[in-house]
Amino acid sequence: MQDATKTAAIVNEYTGDEACSLARAVSVVGQRWSYFILREALAGTTRFTEFRQRLGIASDVLTTRLETLVGAGLMQTQEYREFGQRTRWSYHLTESGRQMMLTIAALQQWGDEWTPSPVPTSVSFRDQHGRQLTAAFVDPEGRVVPIDDVEPIRTSKTC
Amino acid sequence: MQDATKTAAIVNEYTGDEACSLARAVSVVGQRWSYFILREALAGTTRFTEFRQRLGIASDVLTTRLETLVGAGLMQTQEYREFGQRTRWSYHLTESGRQMMLTIAALQQWGDEWTPSPVPTSVSFRDQHGRQLTAAFVDPEGRVVPIDDVEPIRTSKTC
Repeated sequence: MQDATKTAAIVNEYTGDEACSLARAVSVVGQRWSYFILREALAGTTRFTEFRQRLGIASDVLTTRLETLVGAGLMQTQEYREFGQRTRWSYHLTESGRQMMLTIAALQQWGDEWTPSPVPTSVSFRDQHGRQLTAAFVDPEGRVVPIDDVEPIRTSKTC
Repeated sequence: MQDATKTAAIVNEYTGDEACSLARAVSVVGQRWSYFILREALAGTTRFTEFRQRLGIASDVLTTRLETLVGAGLMQTQEYREFGQRTRWSYHLTESGRQMMLTIAALQQWGDEWTPSPVPTSVSFRDQHGRQLTAAFVDPEGRVVPIDDVEPIRTSKTC
């Protein structure tokens, strides 16, 4: 479990004086590739070359996005070394990165519903019994609230 | 209620041959300003000048982002005219845009937890009794599954 205050400090380097939680979140993942890297990491990918091959992403873009994700505390690096090779870094989700799962699930669901495609999504979210989970709004008692019954309320003008 | 097939066709113009639902979703909202515009629209803003003032966004950027959101079917325009003024367009969420609410809620929650800030978020999500709602993973019976118990499973290699 990572310390949220520490994460906040690190994220701050990337967000400057962003006061809003949405602004802070978007400054980390409001980028096409960040979502795909996080999803690939959720699927178990840890190595640079694997990310590059699976995502078909240019090396320099991948380097930059991984640096941002590490700098913002969503991923952390580990050294590894294969026989006869130089030391390399692998990339692993932190607790904060893992928790971005809910946002990714919500985005995938939106895409599935509103831009249907014959190609199935590459990552699905399951419970311990292997049952497919969905993202939803829930009330304080943990009951699902249909999205049509959700009221967005402005609570402040600043943020 | 908007026709999902039509939305898919419109989104296609913006995503080219993106096969993945996540790729399609990200092609629309994987942009900092798209999130803020959608959130502002959820809070009730409809007019160009209001969006510009509340978000502190440059006119040309706002124009481009609104065009993308309209083109992808998340917002639609309406004509309005105030006395002695020329006809203008206002911007309104479609059903597809409204449903992006869950992604925004999930992102805000992540920001609140991992990058805490003293400034409260400007939009909160309530049920019909005014109770605050949260985004969560739920199982097929509608029971909340704690995020620590969620298993991301790779289901395909392509997408």
